[in-house]
Amino acid sequence: MRKIPESTVRRLSLYLRFLEEFEGQGIATVSSGELAARGGTTSAQVRKDFSFFGSFGKRGLGYTVQELAGRLREILGLDRRYKAVVVGAGKIGSALVQYRGFRLRGFDVVAIYDRDRTKVGIEWDGLVTRDIACLPQDLQTSRPEIAIIVTPGEAAQQVTDVLVAGGVLGILNFAPVQLVVPDHVSVKTVNLALELEALSFALTNR
Amino acid sequence: MRKIPESTVRRLSLYLRFLEEFEGQGIATVSSGELAARGGTTSAQVRKDFSFFGSFGKRGLGYTVQELAGRLREILGLDRRYKAVVVGAGKIGSALVQYRGFRLRGFDVVAIYDRDRTKVGIEWDGLVTRDIACLPQDLQTSRPEIAIIVTPGEAAQQVTDVLVAGGVLGILNFAPVQLVVPDHVSVKTVNLALELEALSFALTNR
Repeated sequence: MRKIPESTVRRLSLYLRFLEEFEGQGIATVSSGELAARGGTTSAQVRKDFSFFGSFGKRGLGYTVQELAGRLREILGLDRRYKAVVVGAGKIGSALVQYRGFRLRGFDVVAIYDRDRTKVGIEWDGLVTRDIACLPQDLQTSRPEIAIIVTPGEAAQQVTDVLVAGGVLGILNFAPVQLVVPDHVSVKTVNLALELEALSFALTNR
Repeated sequence: MRKIPESTVRRLSLYLRFLEEFEGQGIATVSSGELAARGGTTSAQVRKDFSFFGSFGKRGLGYTVQELAGRLREILGLDRRYKAVVVGAGKIGSALVQYRGFRLRGFDVVAIYDRDRTKVGIEWDGLVTRDIACLPQDLQTSRPEIAIIVTPGEAAQQVTDVLVAGGVLGILNFAPVQLVVPDHVSVKTVNLALELEALSFALTNR
């Protein structure tokens, strides 16, 4: 498969969101122009985004909403389930354990870890926080594909190395650092600090 | 001022992070090449990013770490303080109220709101959750510049309209929808759903 641009993947997620809206409104078919209008893009862009994955829809007839939504879920891997662990049981970490969006997208959080003895043993949404010292062993038995890192910045790379050595393939990183991983591991970063500074910049330079 | 690309603003935040590291290590001066190497970019890019904001450093001598950090903080507006409100006192919202990163970047959270009567009155980090019905009135008296939206998707646009009418200039949006705002309002979005789907895509299409 050709290398898919990250911007295409993000638009596929958006198109899926719109298709789910259309499904909810009982709309059966949609044109690339209608999808484009909803997403603030062009119909050429919509067709180009889909072209990476073979042929979709029928010329002049548009796309069947339900079929296209199913196809996008397949492409995005949302028809599978993944095991995920959360590392860091602070305020954001413990809130994330309870975040419904993970389960909705096939991510089953199977464990949460912390190195702080006062946090170990606390239960969040049915999961008892485990000592980070158990992580290497646990990875061998439960084989999670995904890890969500919510540690302080200075701990994040060390945790990452343990996770990668234990076979984790995807990381969602909330720590405010750039993680170094081998090529076969994907990292997506949610950097609140960057977003806040971009907002501060926009307010200052109006 | 020329329109500054969003990618430049993000790199300025990263450069500032690196300069703070260098400060911590007692390093006094740094070249554009060293900053570039730390950030995985080129020295031409570093100089171009800075060129939007006038002249920095001395030819052949590089930049004084402390001076450059101070200048970047000024450019990013991190030397000011902003009042912020959080709308949505669910798990993520109440965790965010307690997030130290806001205060570190000059964002003082002055209030948290919810429409759910069972959440109103609960205290988070010294702030008592207020009824969303009080929001329009409160905006008139406290005049916050920034709002952090952590409501369900279907409520987010309506909340946004109230915030914008009340004079809010910047929004950090955690709701999984694209918000419509007038040109003078900045929105930064943290879309966990998109990040998760990008991760799921990467794992499926390895």
